[in-house]
Amino acid sequence: IQSKLPHTGTTIFSVMSKLADTHQAINLSQGFPDYDCDPKLIALVNEAMKNGFNQYAPMPGLPELRTLIAEKVSNLYGANYHPDTEVTITAGGTQAIFTALSAVINSGDEVIIFEPAYDCYAPTVKLLGGLVKPYELAPPNYEIDWEMVKKLFTANTKMIILNSPQNPTGCTLSEKDIKALTKLTKNTDVLILSDEVYEHIIFDGLKHQSIALYPELRERSFITASFGKLLHATGWKLGYCLAPEWLTKEFRKVHQFNVFSVNTPMQVGIANYLKDTDTYLGLSAFFQEKRDFFRSLLSETSFKLLPCNGSYFQCVSYAHLNQEKDTDMAVKLVKTHGVASVPVSAFYTKGTDHQVLRFCFAKKQETLEKAVERLMKL
Amino acid sequence: IQSKLPHTGTTIFSVMSKLADTHQAINLSQGFPDYDCDPKLIALVNEAMKNGFNQYAPMPGLPELRTLIAEKVSNLYGANYHPDTEVTITAGGTQAIFTALSAVINSGDEVIIFEPAYDCYAPTVKLLGGLVKPYELAPPNYEIDWEMVKKLFTANTKMIILNSPQNPTGCTLSEKDIKALTKLTKNTDVLILSDEVYEHIIFDGLKHQSIALYPELRERSFITASFGKLLHATGWKLGYCLAPEWLTKEFRKVHQFNVFSVNTPMQVGIANYLKDTDTYLGLSAFFQEKRDFFRSLLSETSFKLLPCNGSYFQCVSYAHLNQEKDTDMAVKLVKTHGVASVPVSAFYTKGTDHQVLRFCFAKKQETLEKAVERLMKL
Ligand SMILES: CSCCC(=O)C(=O)O
Ligand SMILES: CSCCC(=O)C(=O)O
Repeated sequence: IQSKLPHTGTTIFSVMSKLADTHQAINLSQGFPDYDCDPKLIALVNEAMKNGFNQYAPMPGLPELRTLIAEKVSNLYGANYHPDTEVTITAGGTQAIFTALSAVINSGDEVIIFEPAYDCYAPTVKLLGGLVKPYELAPPNYEIDWEMVKKLFTANTKMIILNSPQNPTGCTLSEKDIKALTKLTKNTDVLILSDEVYEHIIFDGLKHQSIALYPELRERSFITASFGKLLHATGWKLGYCLAPEWLTKEFRKVHQFNVFSVNTPMQVGIANYLKDTDTYLGLSAFFQEKRDFFRSLLSETSFKLLPCNGSYFQCVSYAHLNQEKDTDMAVKLVKTHGVASVPVSAFYTKGTDHQVLRFCFAKKQETLEKAVERLMKL
Repeated sequence: IQSKLPHTGTTIFSVMSKLADTHQAINLSQGFPDYDCDPKLIALVNEAMKNGFNQYAPMPGLPELRTLIAEKVSNLYGANYHPDTEVTITAGGTQAIFTALSAVINSGDEVIIFEPAYDCYAPTVKLLGGLVKPYELAPPNYEIDWEMVKKLFTANTKMIILNSPQNPTGCTLSEKDIKALTKLTKNTDVLILSDEVYEHIIFDGLKHQSIALYPELRERSFITASFGKLLHATGWKLGYCLAPEWLTKEFRKVHQFNVFSVNTPMQVGIANYLKDTDTYLGLSAFFQEKRDFFRSLLSETSFKLLPCNGSYFQCVSYAHLNQEKDTDMAVKLVKTHGVASVPVSAFYTKGTDHQVLRFCFAKKQETLEKAVERLMKL
């Protein structure tokens, strides 16, 4: 058969994590913590299993969990999403994104993506017969020129994908960005997919510009999020999707035939855990300390630090050091220095190489120390 | 926007389970046990969480679990699937099916489906732009006339979907069926999707006709399976897909962007649990007892029992009793008798109504007794 994704290889996260394992490198590539989630959370999941919550959850998710999310979004962003018809629990943020795209993208539809971008967007759009319209942003600040975005719009523009705080750059959208977006899409049917998996990891007092804050936009938006990132349990693969009823209806048509429903005892455990809002409201402070620590260490290396306003990724530039491709540089760092990162060219559809590497700092203090110690030798 | 699935409503399983809850009926509709899974299994998952297995598993699944599955398939069916390149762990049987279809079905491709059929196949094919070619089977025996299947083949036939033991009918494919299929698809590129989620639930000494038994067929087949059905834990949403390397490669291209990976502690727990093969080899006997018990009870009602060779579903006909549509009959049974079933017309693309209802007997003895007591009043 002819491949539907002839140019798609294995996702860079698998490639780098595998390479890290092979060479016993410190793995700062894939985005996951090397410390554990809260034992209280584990105890709650265990309790759920022991209490017999081991059969199918309702297709859209556990009602209690959906209600808690609706409350959180209402408290934080003043948006009212009805738990019955506008909140759906998913098998991770990625499944939420895949399902949202599958529900609305038709052959020939154009989707605007800001690059560098999380690597699932573009192949999913292509799989659905859609056309990716990448807008390439550049270091150090990866700012968006909305006049340039405007030029990408055509009669076939179906959707624009946002991601703030952004993976891999750690950049965040400002109120000004949202205003520009609002103006640009006013009186259009253009949909928005807002990947907000790092919504609770934002620094220096910046305010997360959730699409949920903006009634004009949220009425035609999917917002996707991740419990894995929220609860330091990326391996649990739970997330959710917020969308107005008319979009949730389409979302669930696909969701029910994609995964049908999502892990029951984990949903029960998380619902009980999230009753205590401290669990996520302290997350930015927690990671800001890690970011500051990691940046102060990295400032002693020969890398140039790029800004980091949110997410748990720190990007560095080495363009002033050598002319190596970032993919080669990333492999070299693993093999000769024992530290794994992600080459940021992997996040551009065209593989554009600005000689930037991404490090994940959701790691123990000693892991970060040991990694930077090795990077000092560069 | 125009819906991509304009004629798709909420899956019948959600509809009936919700109706059952609303009316506090005994729920024999959706296929899940009302007794619990093995406490040992729960303890193993808890142990995995406590031991820190809470971050991303490898994208294709935990190596130990993939190896165990490859061993099981080798022992039972003499097929060698390489754990690295031919076994993928999924977020349930449904995700395996959705992903396999997404990986290979293109616009215009025709897919032959034996109906009544599990309700995710047809809408997923349609979502992908494929054409469903249903072959409608009829009670009481739902036999396949392979001459009729032959007539459905065209130059555009891309795939044929099998499901044995079959949901909803409880019928099984015989060696003769497989021989006919082999002959029919010899020297063609037609792919097979073999949904074998009930492989370990087959009665009266019948041998499960896994596609893995047949080298000629398995080299162009996806085989999907479910740990939920195997371990009485349908809410854990874990399953797997077996396919030769060339198909697994395409499968994983989609899988990695659909869910990326699957719940880690559950994979670890299940892998440790499955080291003991008794856990699944006794399953047929376990359910045969339930089937026999349920059938002997039902034989006292006014329903006509249809055959049941496998799965945990028993179908009954009431065509001799009245002319009501099976959807009406199912609703009536909930509302006036307090027992939920699934109307089998929901499993035909065209809604064909043979006045047959499906009951799930993966239930405690007393649940089955209480349910049939109520059905006696019919
Ligand atoms: C789903 S694996 C990727 C994890 C992640 O968010 C990242 O490393 O960017
Ligand atoms: C995924 S919900 C359906 C469960 C099941 O296998 C059935 O009831 O047929």
